[in-house]
Amino acid sequence: MADALYLGLDGGGTNSRARLTDAAGLVLGEGVAGSSNLTLGVDVAATAIRAATAAALDAAGLDASALGRVRAGLGLAGANVPSLAAAIAAEPFGYAAVAVASDAVAACLGAHGGRDGAILILGTGSQGLALVQGRATAVGGWGFQIGDDGSGAILGRAAVRAAILSIDELAPRSALTRAVMARFHDDPSEAVIWAKSAVARDYARFAPLVFEHRAAGDAVAEALIDEAVAGVGAQLDRLMALGASRIVLVGGLAEPYRPWLPERFAPVLVAAEGDPMDGALALARREAA
Amino acid sequence: MADALYLGLDGGGTNSRARLTDAAGLVLGEGVAGSSNLTLGVDVAATAIRAATAAALDAAGLDASALGRVRAGLGLAGANVPSLAAAIAAEPFGYAAVAVASDAVAACLGAHGGRDGAILILGTGSQGLALVQGRATAVGGWGFQIGDDGSGAILGRAAVRAAILSIDELAPRSALTRAVMARFHDDPSEAVIWAKSAVARDYARFAPLVFEHRAAGDAVAEALIDEAVAGVGAQLDRLMALGASRIVLVGGLAEPYRPWLPERFAPVLVAAEGDPMDGALALARREAA
Repeated sequence: MADALYLGLDGGGTNSRARLTDAAGLVLGEGVAGSSNLTLGVDVAATAIRAATAAALDAAGLDASALGRVRAGLGLAGANVPSLAAAIAAEPFGYAAVAVASDAVAACLGAHGGRDGAILILGTGSQGLALVQGRATAVGGWGFQIGDDGSGAILGRAAVRAAILSIDELAPRSALTRAVMARFHDDPSEAVIWAKSAVARDYARFAPLVFEHRAAGDAVAEALIDEAVAGVGAQLDRLMALGASRIVLVGGLAEPYRPWLPERFAPVLVAAEGDPMDGALALARREAA
Repeated sequence: MADALYLGLDGGGTNSRARLTDAAGLVLGEGVAGSSNLTLGVDVAATAIRAATAAALDAAGLDASALGRVRAGLGLAGANVPSLAAAIAAEPFGYAAVAVASDAVAACLGAHGGRDGAILILGTGSQGLALVQGRATAVGGWGFQIGDDGSGAILGRAAVRAAILSIDELAPRSALTRAVMARFHDDPSEAVIWAKSAVARDYARFAPLVFEHRAAGDAVAEALIDEAVAGVGAQLDRLMALGASRIVLVGGLAEPYRPWLPERFAPVLVAAEGDPMDGALALARREAA
């Protein structure tokens, strides 16, 4: 029998990225396909996983006949729902073995080289995860309306609210509130119509504007960032209380937030050792061991 | 020619209420029909206005032949949009005369007996309006996502967020957070699913719970009410800055808020002299004068 192959797949809401390695960990190829977020449907996810796998095999100069040698680790959005994780694990992919975990667990394993630690995702949404002594504990998340403190959506919405309040002279104007209103052609009615259908990602588009103006010393931006940092700090404190002594910040707002976080977090905030595909590969190796 | 009749109609999102008086102000009859919120469509609103008018005439023992004697004042939700106000004013109702204003303007005229003053609506949404020297200035409003500070929807959502934060030990638990979570059977996933389709009115259902627990000294409820009161206070201050020396609180949360508002507002907060139909009648009389 030919040597085993390992496949690590990071399946999020935007796309699925697969990395194929040999038994020694040498990268043979990578492939990308559509979203494999399980909440979109197990069939949709399975199709994307098959496509990303085939693309990675192809990039490695292999074909479907190699599938039976592949030990796969799948880190999938939605796999924190046990029924969805079980359904995708039962799918007849043709792998030699398959291990399934949430995309956050895979990201955490990747960030810490498979060892204990935590991640805090700061993007459109926010979500913390601590992996300590084999136990995964999620912190925060829950979505835009009732959770996601410190996320781009929450910060961006706060910026729009501050701008609208300033129009009615209920709160101070600043360069930031003027920049926000300029995106609505200085017409609050346009903002009202926009808000009727705006989703998290639409609000998150205002977050970079807040960081820009914070750097320039804008008073409204300072108040908004202070509030957001309090939310981020609460999540970091909780991850530390859960036993994580190393935390990796992940997502598009990780770097923008860094200069404004309290000094006391500096010792625990570390750089990622690997990416979520590395974490999914660790999952596959752990399953094989 | 027979004496003039006056009709005041309060047209909101739930229903349209019409009051018919004689020239001396004696109430002859009242009628109720469906919503005449102009944003639902001018045709829909016109149908409701005709139905409420017919019902009021009927209650007064009159029929459609009296319509030509009726001077109508219509206070309609959506009439702050000039094109909608013009469209409904041009509708061939058959009235001797018609005057159109927003429901908030009619409510303010009714509350202050047609004199200068302001109202602050505190219900599912929030909205201030000052009527000073013939000039109407709106304060706040703009809807749940980007405005409506102090509204039931904003307060209720803050309560749900506080409860969800407490589940992750990111914020303190209290009797209030437990009461909120009990409505979701203590399952944050149930709250997430609910939040996907929850509208302002759904969040507002949690507001009474916050006031209840505030009265009992709950620390989380106290923080939430303090924040909400700051938003209400900013709107009251702004209405006073616009020249209103008398303000009437309107809506389902007006009474719950009263004990928690700063003392300094006590001298300006007055009881309503009349209701929105009285305000619409004042509108009709003003037009006739």
